[in-house]
Amino acid sequence: MKKWKTLSSELVFDNKWFKVQKDAVELSNGTVLDDYFFWKEQNVSQVVALTKNNKMVLVKQYKHAADEIMIEFPAGYVEGSEDFKEAAKREFLEETGYTAENFELIGKVIHNPTKSSGIVKIYLALGAEMSDVQNLDQNEEIEILVLEIDKVLKMISKGEIWATGTIAAIFLALNKLKYNL
Amino acid sequence: MKKWKTLSSELVFDNKWFKVQKDAVELSNGTVLDDYFFWKEQNVSQVVALTKNNKMVLVKQYKHAADEIMIEFPAGYVEGSEDFKEAAKREFLEETGYTAENFELIGKVIHNPTKSSGIVKIYLALGAEMSDVQNLDQNEEIEILVLEIDKVLKMISKGEIWATGTIAAIFLALNKLKYNL
Repeated sequence: MKKWKTLSSELVFDNKWFKVQKDAVELSNGTVLDDYFFWKEQNVSQVVALTKNNKMVLVKQYKHAADEIMIEFPAGYVEGSEDFKEAAKREFLEETGYTAENFELIGKVIHNPTKSSGIVKIYLALGAEMSDVQNLDQNEEIEILVLEIDKVLKMISKGEIWATGTIAAIFLALNKLKYNL
Repeated sequence: MKKWKTLSSELVFDNKWFKVQKDAVELSNGTVLDDYFFWKEQNVSQVVALTKNNKMVLVKQYKHAADEIMIEFPAGYVEGSEDFKEAAKREFLEETGYTAENFELIGKVIHNPTKSSGIVKIYLALGAEMSDVQNLDQNEEIEILVLEIDKVLKMISKGEIWATGTIAAIFLALNKLKYNL
């Protein structure tokens, strides 16, 4: 099995907040597709944080594409020249006001490998504690939830937590922590 | 906490293969954003299938936005007038040539609630067996993998399986099956 070959690329929708790329590609069987479209998304860092009491720090906020109030692990785009770990620390502090003793990379994942280029690096942050107030963008209204691990697992079972990134992140974190599910 | 109010909507990029919607929205604090962009993605069905020997059926294929060969559970868009369950059965048969005795809905998830409207319904299919050859689109080249559950879990730990949808789906399936992780 071979990768496709990219013959040409063009940004056909190029807004500060959303970019769509069109590639002409050659498949391994020789077929040429002139117009393969995908979302040129920025990369993301996401944080699974545990407090000293072994509770997880989550954020609850309205998400417009879903048109739902969602509960997820804190996450945000990697901006400018920062690396994934810097973005993880910055977003975690901005969204929750929490810091943590250390941030360990526990996985690299992707939401939509067919149609979106954005990847997500997941960090496990231990020894999390409140250190400041939230520092939110104009369009962010975020409630902080500090929950027992079993409570988070129950909320996933019930469909109350349903973003794939958050479910994948807890899976990787509990695997890392050798937590018996 | 309240949802945003949508004041107007416009498809600003409207291609058969990719659609971007721009909404004007009013936040709960009264702020108006004129240009909130998101991907108007179709909905998806995904299938976690177990054979009578308790093995999982996965597909390996090149995914262009990731520019990687990915291993995932079979999945595809819900097309035309079909419902999620019909799409699950159709995609599973087309991509793998397998059928199953029953398809049970075990979860509704979303990849990117901030910027993509597409939701994913996950079906657990028991008693899966090969019944036909694959029936692939012109741009699909798919290898079928039939793997022990523990092997799939190891591949996730190693980062060889890294799509959030597939990780979330196995989490929900094993939870349903009361599988001891």
